[in-house]
Amino acid sequence: MPEIRKDPVFGRWVIMASERGLRPNEFLAAGEEAGYACPFCAGNENLTPPTLYSLPGKDGWRLRVVSNKYPALVPAGSPDGRREGLYTSMDALGVHEVVVETPEHGRPLEELPDEAVSDVVKTFALRVKEIKKDPRIKHVLIFKNHGRNAGASLLHPHSQIIAMPMAPLRVTQELDGAAAYHKERGTCVYCDMAAEELSFKKRVVAENSAFLAVTPYASCFSFEILILPKKHLSHFEDLPEAEAAALAGVLKAAISKLAVSLPDLSYNLIVHTMPVQEAEAPHYHWHIEITPKLTRVAGFEWGTGFYINTVKPEEAAEILNSGKKYKI
Amino acid sequence: MPEIRKDPVFGRWVIMASERGLRPNEFLAAGEEAGYACPFCAGNENLTPPTLYSLPGKDGWRLRVVSNKYPALVPAGSPDGRREGLYTSMDALGVHEVVVETPEHGRPLEELPDEAVSDVVKTFALRVKEIKKDPRIKHVLIFKNHGRNAGASLLHPHSQIIAMPMAPLRVTQELDGAAAYHKERGTCVYCDMAAEELSFKKRVVAENSAFLAVTPYASCFSFEILILPKKHLSHFEDLPEAEAAALAGVLKAAISKLAVSLPDLSYNLIVHTMPVQEAEAPHYHWHIEITPKLTRVAGFEWGTGFYINTVKPEEAAEILNSGKKYKI
Repeated sequence: MPEIRKDPVFGRWVIMASERGLRPNEFLAAGEEAGYACPFCAGNENLTPPTLYSLPGKDGWRLRVVSNKYPALVPAGSPDGRREGLYTSMDALGVHEVVVETPEHGRPLEELPDEAVSDVVKTFALRVKEIKKDPRIKHVLIFKNHGRNAGASLLHPHSQIIAMPMAPLRVTQELDGAAAYHKERGTCVYCDMAAEELSFKKRVVAENSAFLAVTPYASCFSFEILILPKKHLSHFEDLPEAEAAALAGVLKAAISKLAVSLPDLSYNLIVHTMPVQEAEAPHYHWHIEITPKLTRVAGFEWGTGFYINTVKPEEAAEILNSGKKYKI
Repeated sequence: MPEIRKDPVFGRWVIMASERGLRPNEFLAAGEEAGYACPFCAGNENLTPPTLYSLPGKDGWRLRVVSNKYPALVPAGSPDGRREGLYTSMDALGVHEVVVETPEHGRPLEELPDEAVSDVVKTFALRVKEIKKDPRIKHVLIFKNHGRNAGASLLHPHSQIIAMPMAPLRVTQELDGAAAYHKERGTCVYCDMAAEELSFKKRVVAENSAFLAVTPYASCFSFEILILPKKHLSHFEDLPEAEAAALAGVLKAAISKLAVSLPDLSYNLIVHTMPVQEAEAPHYHWHIEITPKLTRVAGFEWGTGFYINTVKPEEAAEILNSGKKYKI
């Protein structure tokens, strides 16, 4: 059984999950061509836990949601802490699901039809609404690891949803930062950023009626992209269904530009959203962060929380918008 | 000229350093066997900036300190912020030095003679004392990236020293966490941890009169090691010279155990210490963190500040102490 332990200085949580060490890794094994049966391909549904949700398609389904076979968190136990001498631990209570975005093994998200990307976005919102019915669940993280350098272990296009019994440290830090900004200026920092970026223009990489994609001013990673909804909304799962297509459009455009300019693209995609049991708030605005992984995070970053970026975001936007290839 | 930018939500600093993108990378180029002239080998001193400090040896020197040829921060400019619309930036003022630990290219730190490891430790303290004479410098980070997976770009054994004009976020978070613990219990969290680990025993991997090496209770990374001084001291650079040999002994023992159990070892080593212009404090106690990099940090960790570790620290200590090889 996995267990969660708390760092006594930082208040940072760590999931101790020995079982996850057993999961297959296509990249580590025989490289990306490893000829083993992919659990996410059509016809191999028996290799995963049962389907939790799916959308019909010509292979029987066009999108499937299943529980993660090697979960970091499991839907059992109590959200209460236990003392172990100086330290605190708790049950690794939560939910860990996988969204298989397409039955096609080699077709990345940005190459799927627009409607399929809309389906992925709508499914994310639907699953969060389902999961948050359990009052023990305080936060739900939606994320995607694409490619070896981004920590993916399987090649087949998929995203993950992890629900947990507390708001994690980075989420509370982000909420605190946004609340401090709101207290000082009376406005939402994300609304202000959207306005500033639309007027500055040089960091915009995609835009439509409802969304904006920019290379953020203080990007930690080269070619990092931030997707901002133009309308203020705290919870991602409250996305109006009519806006799913617009979000899918900006998402596809942004990832496509990364795929053109960056060879062998690896990235992490993270949906930043309000903890699920909290109310809509004037200071916090959901958004998506896409961080390509060209280099490794090293000691300096880990020791300071300071980042070194070798490509200014204005240059990154110019490269992405021109369709030029970037030579690492 | 590099520039520092501040994230408007997290308060996180990012160094924009285009020049660092030009530095050579032995690992990326033709692999570790790349036959180019190593700038850190004896005889190639003309390939680095001038020597700032050295200790004599049979090759002319046995340890050398030079400025980093591709610095993240440079000793020029002002520590004052500038407004850019919504955002804040400042000059990338600071110091970036490299400590070449040995003239021998292929001899890692843990295989050097005890006195050579003591020399490295004493040199770290000496350089910090020199650098902190500049009152614009608020924090000095000493770190080491060893191996490709830890973000090293050169194979030759070396460490780095980066001095900066502010205490970075992770350092202030650590100080705040330690201060909160001290306020609640009246004791130093690191002193308490040392006592708890010595009594629990199962996470101890090395110990001598003055230092203790343990696999910490809430390790973020598998086989992570924490080196704690037994005596309370806030500033690493105040290490009594008589204790350098004891620190070197525990450091060598800890890294040697990692090298035996983990094939193709990559790790980051970070000295956590008090910002240099601050006074000794009862709540903060310097320490060293060694984090082997067996897997990559992926979207979940980046999105939450939550970590997933597949090897419990008690198991990690047992493997390291038995000399068993760990199969990833």
